[in-house]
Amino acid sequence: MYAVIMAGGQGTRFWPRSRRKRPKQLLDIVGSESMIRQTVDRLDSLIKPKDVYVVTGKEHVEELIGHIPHVPSENIIAEPIGRNTAPCIGLAAMRLRRIDPEGVMAVLPADHVILDKEGFLETLRFAGDVAKSGDYIITLGMKPDRPETGYGYIKKGSVVSGQWPVGWAVPTSSESKDGVTPPLQVFKVERFVEKPDKDTAEEYVKSGQYLWNAGMFVFKVSTILRAIEKFMPDLYIGLLRMEPALGTDSQEKILSEVYGELPSVSIDYGVMEKADNVLVVPSTFGWNDVGSWTAIDDLLPRNEHGVVAHAEHISIDTKDCIVYSPKKLVATIGVSDLIVVETEDALLICHKSRAQDVKKVVEILEKEGKGKYL
Amino acid sequence: MYAVIMAGGQGTRFWPRSRRKRPKQLLDIVGSESMIRQTVDRLDSLIKPKDVYVVTGKEHVEELIGHIPHVPSENIIAEPIGRNTAPCIGLAAMRLRRIDPEGVMAVLPADHVILDKEGFLETLRFAGDVAKSGDYIITLGMKPDRPETGYGYIKKGSVVSGQWPVGWAVPTSSESKDGVTPPLQVFKVERFVEKPDKDTAEEYVKSGQYLWNAGMFVFKVSTILRAIEKFMPDLYIGLLRMEPALGTDSQEKILSEVYGELPSVSIDYGVMEKADNVLVVPSTFGWNDVGSWTAIDDLLPRNEHGVVAHAEHISIDTKDCIVYSPKKLVATIGVSDLIVVETEDALLICHKSRAQDVKKVVEILEKEGKGKYL
Repeated sequence: MYAVIMAGGQGTRFWPRSRRKRPKQLLDIVGSESMIRQTVDRLDSLIKPKDVYVVTGKEHVEELIGHIPHVPSENIIAEPIGRNTAPCIGLAAMRLRRIDPEGVMAVLPADHVILDKEGFLETLRFAGDVAKSGDYIITLGMKPDRPETGYGYIKKGSVVSGQWPVGWAVPTSSESKDGVTPPLQVFKVERFVEKPDKDTAEEYVKSGQYLWNAGMFVFKVSTILRAIEKFMPDLYIGLLRMEPALGTDSQEKILSEVYGELPSVSIDYGVMEKADNVLVVPSTFGWNDVGSWTAIDDLLPRNEHGVVAHAEHISIDTKDCIVYSPKKLVATIGVSDLIVVETEDALLICHKSRAQDVKKVVEILEKEGKGKYL
Repeated sequence: MYAVIMAGGQGTRFWPRSRRKRPKQLLDIVGSESMIRQTVDRLDSLIKPKDVYVVTGKEHVEELIGHIPHVPSENIIAEPIGRNTAPCIGLAAMRLRRIDPEGVMAVLPADHVILDKEGFLETLRFAGDVAKSGDYIITLGMKPDRPETGYGYIKKGSVVSGQWPVGWAVPTSSESKDGVTPPLQVFKVERFVEKPDKDTAEEYVKSGQYLWNAGMFVFKVSTILRAIEKFMPDLYIGLLRMEPALGTDSQEKILSEVYGELPSVSIDYGVMEKADNVLVVPSTFGWNDVGSWTAIDDLLPRNEHGVVAHAEHISIDTKDCIVYSPKKLVATIGVSDLIVVETEDALLICHKSRAQDVKKVVEILEKEGKGKYL
């Protein structure tokens, strides 16, 4: 099994910590290691670093290698420009076809948090077994615990049985209740749905039929390339043009010529929503996409006033705040529900209800030509 | 006429800008000059720098001289320790007795803002004339425009007429209505009252009989020393012990021996509330004691969203905030009524309704031995 880690995003909602030169996956938002490092390391007992491939923007390659020196540098694939997930996954698959065309690859985002590592690895192993057994595109669907409007959902269809060991009693500790751990199962995907409104999200959760789309996929290299050939022929032709150069000295040259012309489309839209061999494994391993500063509330311990502080913090009547200021004393008086983030050159103060709008600051900085803060 | 500027306070409510080494009067809270410099300069057409005396803590003398190099350094009187206003004023009066015992002295705080300089100088000149004419302790009482609970009040008694030109038509522009400027008057003081509660303050304002005690006084040197002799004999004895050394090389030595033993009492409590020759000149010259960060709202222009910013500021749905951050970009999103102050080593975020509690941060820092932030 190979891992393909997608490390192309910027994570502008983590400004002012996330910057063009230091996107979210290179930050230690949670824990003492960067998110990309944690993503590689949690795979270790299932997928060794030599089998981990990382696709990232070429401007981040150098720093990225510093974070994961145990991943062979030839496994770092540099995109000359971001083209969304379909070209990214296609490129990695084409790279792997030259090594192991019937191998199974797990596609994973570089910047998510997973609390239950063992549960995650068991799920991945199970999905890998399913993928290996046939021509299936497997998605991991997170069982929702709240009517989140920030995620896309996957509606599951009928349960699938086959030659793989459906019914395994896998110790996914996070869902274990009264000592009984439900087995992993796999379902057909009925459909993918976009981010819903609040009411719809509530229905989804109540129904028990919907799962969060976490952007994690497992399939054989040959399976995904066949699907791209069928549903995204333009992309497939582009991938074929690059294929001979992949893993050689001319890889960078051919990517710079071809990659920018590939269609910028997500794998969800380009393939998943069209293919009829998509399955989903309902999963419960404490997943968090760390989508904005408020994710901190779910991931780090709060004090008795609901405050999470990474700072020398003088707190007077302060409630439910996130305070990040590793180098400067912070005093807060009579405030609540604030996100305070202090870096070398910038300071963010944001009401928690507006955490999604942090990216607007980045847009304004871009528009005003204030590149040094980007 | 001499000016005695009291520059002994620390202004802890302006933390993190105000520090032990850089108290409020040395800061440029409003305008581009420090408050002490502005206090000296606005007197210039009435009292020249050579006639300005400044009493300050000895730890601040050196920096203070840098702010007001045009005031002779021998006019800077260094207190070895702060002992409230009565010893401070007594010391300055005793120093002046050796130069001009029948001279008139105006006692002024170093860290207040006065918007209408001409009105202020006319009022001071008028009070000086009254003081010169007899044995009077004159206070300047600010006509209140709101039921402020943060100030002490002065209740005026009957209007006084005498040999000084009561009824002068003084152009105090700030009170001029329809081109008619009421003349300056002087009243007996019926009594001083402590900071009132809200209801009492509202009654005071409605009655028209109460004025804010701004801590500005005018009297002859001989008058105040006579009053101290009468009402604070212990202080007077201490002052007499120091008198021969004042203005000589042994001034510092005698102060270090005597000053710390003087009673730490305010001139209001020690003298004003007991004396029967206290008068008040109702005044309207745009006075502000700059008591806390919220004073900024009254003194600096706000934008259309009520924001006063001294910062490179990205403002998204931000209302009625004060943002001070001269060196760092600040982005605020969805917040209101906040005071944000960023300095080299500390950051304050305070709800405006809690501006008075900034001093509590200083208390906590003291208690926790975090001297570098004091």
